[in-house]
Amino acid sequence: MATIFYSEENLKFLLQEVHNIEEIFSRNYFSDYNSESMNIILDTAKNIASGMMYPYFSEMDKNPPEYTGSTIRVHSSVKPFLEKFAEGGWINASFPSDIGGQQMPFILFNACMFIFASANYSMSVYPGLTSGALALIYQFATRELYQIFAPSMIAGKWQGTMALTEPEAGSSLTDVKTMATPTNKGYYLIKGQKTFISAGDHDAVENIVHLMLARIKDAPAGVKGLSLFIVPKYRPDENGKLIFNDVNCTGCYHKMGYKGAPIAQLSMGEADDCRGYLVGEPNKGLSYMFHMMNEARINVGLGAAAIAGAAYQTSLEYAKERRQGRKITEKNPSVPQIPIIQHADIKRMLLKQKAIVEGSLSLIIQTGKLVDLINTSTGEEKEKCELFLEMLTPIVKTYPAEMGVVSTSLAIQCLGGYGYSSEFPVEQYMRDSRIHPIHEGTTGIQGMDLLGRKVTMKNGAAAKVYMTEIYKTIALAKQYPSLISYAEDLDKAAALWQEVTGFLIQFAIKGDIERFLADATLFLEFSSLICIAWQWLLQGIAVQNSINNSSGSYSKDFLEGKMHTLAYFFRYELTGIYALEKSIRGSDGLTVSMQENYFED
Amino acid sequence: MATIFYSEENLKFLLQEVHNIEEIFSRNYFSDYNSESMNIILDTAKNIASGMMYPYFSEMDKNPPEYTGSTIRVHSSVKPFLEKFAEGGWINASFPSDIGGQQMPFILFNACMFIFASANYSMSVYPGLTSGALALIYQFATRELYQIFAPSMIAGKWQGTMALTEPEAGSSLTDVKTMATPTNKGYYLIKGQKTFISAGDHDAVENIVHLMLARIKDAPAGVKGLSLFIVPKYRPDENGKLIFNDVNCTGCYHKMGYKGAPIAQLSMGEADDCRGYLVGEPNKGLSYMFHMMNEARINVGLGAAAIAGAAYQTSLEYAKERRQGRKITEKNPSVPQIPIIQHADIKRMLLKQKAIVEGSLSLIIQTGKLVDLINTSTGEEKEKCELFLEMLTPIVKTYPAEMGVVSTSLAIQCLGGYGYSSEFPVEQYMRDSRIHPIHEGTTGIQGMDLLGRKVTMKNGAAAKVYMTEIYKTIALAKQYPSLISYAEDLDKAAALWQEVTGFLIQFAIKGDIERFLADATLFLEFSSLICIAWQWLLQGIAVQNSINNSSGSYSKDFLEGKMHTLAYFFRYELTGIYALEKSIRGSDGLTVSMQENYFED
Repeated sequence: MATIFYSEENLKFLLQEVHNIEEIFSRNYFSDYNSESMNIILDTAKNIASGMMYPYFSEMDKNPPEYTGSTIRVHSSVKPFLEKFAEGGWINASFPSDIGGQQMPFILFNACMFIFASANYSMSVYPGLTSGALALIYQFATRELYQIFAPSMIAGKWQGTMALTEPEAGSSLTDVKTMATPTNKGYYLIKGQKTFISAGDHDAVENIVHLMLARIKDAPAGVKGLSLFIVPKYRPDENGKLIFNDVNCTGCYHKMGYKGAPIAQLSMGEADDCRGYLVGEPNKGLSYMFHMMNEARINVGLGAAAIAGAAYQTSLEYAKERRQGRKITEKNPSVPQIPIIQHADIKRMLLKQKAIVEGSLSLIIQTGKLVDLINTSTGEEKEKCELFLEMLTPIVKTYPAEMGVVSTSLAIQCLGGYGYSSEFPVEQYMRDSRIHPIHEGTTGIQGMDLLGRKVTMKNGAAAKVYMTEIYKTIALAKQYPSLISYAEDLDKAAALWQEVTGFLIQFAIKGDIERFLADATLFLEFSSLICIAWQWLLQGIAVQNSINNSSGSYSKDFLEGKMHTLAYFFRYELTGIYALEKSIRGSDGLTVSMQENYFED
Repeated sequence: MATIFYSEENLKFLLQEVHNIEEIFSRNYFSDYNSESMNIILDTAKNIASGMMYPYFSEMDKNPPEYTGSTIRVHSSVKPFLEKFAEGGWINASFPSDIGGQQMPFILFNACMFIFASANYSMSVYPGLTSGALALIYQFATRELYQIFAPSMIAGKWQGTMALTEPEAGSSLTDVKTMATPTNKGYYLIKGQKTFISAGDHDAVENIVHLMLARIKDAPAGVKGLSLFIVPKYRPDENGKLIFNDVNCTGCYHKMGYKGAPIAQLSMGEADDCRGYLVGEPNKGLSYMFHMMNEARINVGLGAAAIAGAAYQTSLEYAKERRQGRKITEKNPSVPQIPIIQHADIKRMLLKQKAIVEGSLSLIIQTGKLVDLINTSTGEEKEKCELFLEMLTPIVKTYPAEMGVVSTSLAIQCLGGYGYSSEFPVEQYMRDSRIHPIHEGTTGIQGMDLLGRKVTMKNGAAAKVYMTEIYKTIALAKQYPSLISYAEDLDKAAALWQEVTGFLIQFAIKGDIERFLADATLFLEFSSLICIAWQWLLQGIAVQNSINNSSGSYSKDFLEGKMHTLAYFFRYELTGIYALEKSIRGSDGLTVSMQENYFED
């Protein structure tokens, strides 16, 4: 296995030089933080990742969870990890200090999550889910419910989950059927089935706390009738003793990768004794979930970028060591072979991975910063940041997810036959990465979100905020001679984005919604390339500032690497928009006119 | 599992209507064949595939080969399959009838191989390797050696292999180190190591017959000093008794997919008693291997297209059955959900798979036909076909291989979370397909082959043959009103191909070979899109002829499906050339100027 699974220097460069994390530290709410404490926290995260997570990366894949008949047996390393992790205060690290949290900025917390996910994505998911569930309880449930459930979750002894999906309701939450029947005893009786629930049951914790979408009896049809409930596997009685709450684990999925995490099937209320506790108001379940959605989707992008980053590090290390072939002009076979990193095509494959990973991570940090700005601002600034984040969310979820599969596949390719063998971790990275275009809303769903909701929201206000930021970056970049040509390329790309968007919106105006959204996935890819190009231009500006300030914290090689990768992205990846533009403009509604029966052979 | 793993109708359409297999049957050498016997043969292949291969597809993945210490234990279905398969005369089907073969045309044999590989790629590899090794023995070894080894190979009792790769000689065959020391007893003593040898040892056969590259003592360095040997695991003594030949199986690779086939590590001559029998003349080993290379590379593309085709069929079947969501304009949640095949983005993903699979298969059949034409022609016709095949080989190997991974990934995406779970076969298809960009020359090697050898060979003669054929198709297509716009698109694309090729050749002329080849992989992708577009235009012509002839053999739905997929390819895939063109012209030698140390973080 590679000895390095992420680049510390790159992470700090993005946090400090590109995204000016100091701006977040300067907010009152985060005043306990500064670059010194940041370094300590990142080091701590690294130690946890190296010591407790990375050693089990491969083992957890080879010994996947098994259904026991009542729960799911997971790898023995999970329980001690969860306890240690909780002990370090990580599960509620972003919570206010007055309720025991550390008020850690999301941008920094996510940088740590990136480190954890790089080391062992499956393992990082357990506490991540608990944090997410806990945040929902904190934000929307009563203090009483918080007191009952939070302490054991914060201690890593109870697992939190998000229980949305059902056998007939995956992408279509409209069709959630799990029922909640009111009682006059302060709880609802839950009956139904959930599927694909991550960490939905396992034996490394004492209890599972599901944040579950269900429909209160006689509620409206569709998403407007969904409510949010806390549904624990065991409910504490008056004395705190845990009583089985009729939440039955009925199976676990075996899957392509991401094997360390148990994905459960659940059946609630088989004995009509499953109690659920309403969170917030009836019929507002989905809106509560949507409050967490941006962060959850950032986290998917983060997981994807982390896996791709670890695969990149493995292939980089291999390419430096593995000797094969000679310079293309060297015809003498008795000259020793050279490390493959000296071959242009290997450099291309490494550059592509680096461009994907660091471009993605930059956008992840950008969106993490926006979450912090939203949480610590009001009025116009808050609204602007919210619109901006809405616009970026489908991209930060999807670009790393889709390109993570491509990137990990290139890591395999760099290793040749060895990459395909299980002796090296790259094939696992590719298998692990394949989940990301699927969960938390598939790529197709994200495309429709971007084009159908975000671009048009508030009369294009979100798109306007986004474009304004891009043009700001372009103007700034034009002040650096070595960035002018990239700034001009992005300028052209931004103009094209507006043209293509206008072209598509014509269909919406004409009322042809099906045609409007038919190429939404392509539009998302098109938009993503421009967005990541923007992130690379921001990195270029930071490089130029580093060179000009000659502060010396970053080596010449590091900065040259950044400039070459920026060049790579613009010359090899951004060019993709010219193909996508042609397809979007020229598709002529083909996927609408295609009929089911034409697929018959 | 899907009940259909390939489309019979499509296969026949490509063989008969697009590539006019009758032309092959009309050759003297193949005069025993006609469309009637073709149908019988295809049905027989289908029965073997359905009965003896497909049932073990998933089982062989879940119970992969295990190293026993001396050999590799493979799935128990392999032995009876090999015997039955051999009984049917398949292993030497393409051999002349006077030595017991069936003189089956390669185009037809490959159509059968496509059926076998669709059903169970791993299983299809065992006899395929034996056939390849046998063909080398037949073509280049003495009659005596043929008599010793061929009968048991033809009977499926001895496994043939191609043993080229060594730990330090993968892409670089120059560095093969296995030594052959001459004796005066009619054999050489072999010493060395081989790795990644497919079916290199296993317990479903009595013996393994390696066609092995080795270097005769004092031979020239590099590829010019490589000779070809038959190196059996057991050698028959004068009485035909099998004696261990000091070929030691030292391990087997566990891998991402393609798990049903054992990939061995070998060590020859540990007891200085490994005998090798020279095939043909000394130092001509690589040129003999290259005789088989075109066919071996077609077979890789075939395997990739077959896997992608089977995955497509699974996702198609699922998309017709699975109900999720409603028409985009349907806001009433109480209306029943619709089959997902009615969503535009699902149709897009199905069309993309169909376009990749059927475009690839068409090119595979095209190249198979060329092999038959070469084998049954002389003089100018033969030379023209040879040049044409040389040009197409890196494309027919790589496009299906690279796009097969994309296509199988889309099959997963169509199934959402279920696609990622091992309950459905699509995740296995994706894992299986990932080998193809690696074996028989990686994509990087193929790119250099296309640009560095094929485009420039004989002063561009191969490129000229290829372009002439493309322009012939364009001219023909322009006679059909519904094909004119596609013909014009391909016309533009062909002109662009010549421009881009000319642009790159400038660097070769200037002697800057590194820069010339730096973007060879992109050039291969660029060329492949145009080549597959040509194959789709050929299919369009066949569709129009079918409509005009109104022979009625193909349903309106089938023909509409073809026309929509043709449109899909031109509007969504061929557009990629405009991005690749920009990258190739604008890369400015970035991957040459990028330095190893810039990758340091």
